[in-house]
Amino acid sequence: EEKPHVQFVPGQTLNPNGAQRFYELVCGRRSIRSFSALPKPSLSVIEECIRAAGTAPSGAHTEPWTFCVVEEARVKQSVRWIVEHEEQINYNKRMHPQWVTDLRPLQTSHVKPYLMDAPYLILIFKQTYGTTKEGRRKTHYYNEISTSISAGILLCALQAAGLSSLVTTPLNCGPALRELLQRPENEKLLILLAVGYPSDDCKVPDLERKRLDEIMVKY
Amino acid sequence: EEKPHVQFVPGQTLNPNGAQRFYELVCGRRSIRSFSALPKPSLSVIEECIRAAGTAPSGAHTEPWTFCVVEEARVKQSVRWIVEHEEQINYNKRMHPQWVTDLRPLQTSHVKPYLMDAPYLILIFKQTYGTTKEGRRKTHYYNEISTSISAGILLCALQAAGLSSLVTTPLNCGPALRELLQRPENEKLLILLAVGYPSDDCKVPDLERKRLDEIMVKY
Ligand SMILES: Cc1cc2nc3c(=O)[nH]c(=O)nc-3n(C[C@H](O)[C@H](O)[C@H](O)COP(=O)(O)O)c2cc1C
Ligand SMILES: Cc1cc2nc3c(=O)[nH]c(=O)nc-3n(C[C@H](O)[C@H](O)[C@H](O)COP(=O)(O)O)c2cc1C
Repeated sequence: EEKPHVQFVPGQTLNPNGAQRFYELVCGRRSIRSFSALPKPSLSVIEECIRAAGTAPSGAHTEPWTFCVVEEARVKQSVRWIVEHEEQINYNKRMHPQWVTDLRPLQTSHVKPYLMDAPYLILIFKQTYGTTKEGRRKTHYYNEISTSISAGILLCALQAAGLSSLVTTPLNCGPALRELLQRPENEKLLILLAVGYPSDDCKVPDLERKRLDEIMVKY
Repeated sequence: EEKPHVQFVPGQTLNPNGAQRFYELVCGRRSIRSFSALPKPSLSVIEECIRAAGTAPSGAHTEPWTFCVVEEARVKQSVRWIVEHEEQINYNKRMHPQWVTDLRPLQTSHVKPYLMDAPYLILIFKQTYGTTKEGRRKTHYYNEISTSISAGILLCALQAAGLSSLVTTPLNCGPALRELLQRPENEKLLILLAVGYPSDDCKVPDLERKRLDEIMVKY
């Protein structure tokens, strides 16, 4: 059916410094791999950030995302077991040698204490299909792009709240994590996000970002 | 080689209202399909937004994105020709009937005057692979997820600047648009984004978003 169309009222008035201030906010974001268990951010802040992620655009307005927020130590421990077990095989056998070389600057390994230390893990699932009111299967076009855009908005929200995070895509862990969290068959794990405050001694690799003229072309 | 690791200094101090204020900012975002050619946002604002997008995390820090900013009427016209030509075939032949049904609430069609009216088109390419210093091909793991996250950050930046946009993924137009913009073979079109201010009579479909308890699960 056609939806009624309504006058669009921009949510934000013109803001001459908005882009610059936003850049200053997000340019401080870094992926951290060492979290502090305390202080624990309040769940309501996490909820507000996920609410922001839920405003993302999506192909044909399918909103094909589920955010699983893991707070309980027992569940975090199971996530850690699953991920470390698979990542050990990944690093030793599945990953192409070039991949392992590419990761060397980051000094990552299959041992991931941050999966317990981070006060929250957010497992972001993409819904590959949905069901119509009549119970028929409904394809979710571009569900990966839509859910990743939503994840990008989530990262900005966390940054605005003063929280840090680590995006990971643990290879081959999707099915076991989906079962652990009892998610339905149409959902596939896209991102496992650790969220919290950095530990006092948290270090990050001294990476450089590409300059604007390396990522933008004018026509 | 290993990168030196440096102490992490959070870019943003704890902000108790940060998440909520950020939600209020992004919840006003809507996809618009009717743009005003004037006033034309200054290019420096667009650049600042792309700079923000360039802070996104990426698999193994590959930064696998290119933002092509189209401002010239002649190039926009070519983009419009390519897209309308393919979209006519898409709507008539390629799209599954269920897809056309799913799009009906949005009242979209293959005719896209906004591709000329919008002062800027940003064509976002994902780089499917790169080259090492030694000239070997280097896979870009998760390039679609990374580039889509970056697009999500770009949308937030545009919103912070008071600009509106439309995310589109024009089916089958990638190769022709890549050629038009003379992008290399490793780049694939991910998103065609129209950017600008809404026209005075801009209407949007009266869509509802899912509630928090429909997109979030606690463990
Ligand atoms: C990956 C993706 C692809 C999209 N493709 C199109 C498109 O081709 N044409 C279009 O008019 N809108 C497109 N949209 C916009 C969606 O229809 C829109 O986001 C959705 O209806 C929700 O509306 P909102 O963005 O105003 O919240 C796309 C959005 C996403 C995220
Ligand atoms: C799609 C994606 C997958 C990633 N996977 C991992 C991962 O499995 N393990 C990890 O430690 N970091 C992972 N990262 C984080 C990147 O290594 C990090 O974003 C990059 O090195 C840039 O650093 P920055 O985020 O501090 O700017 C991933 C990032 C993205 C976007």
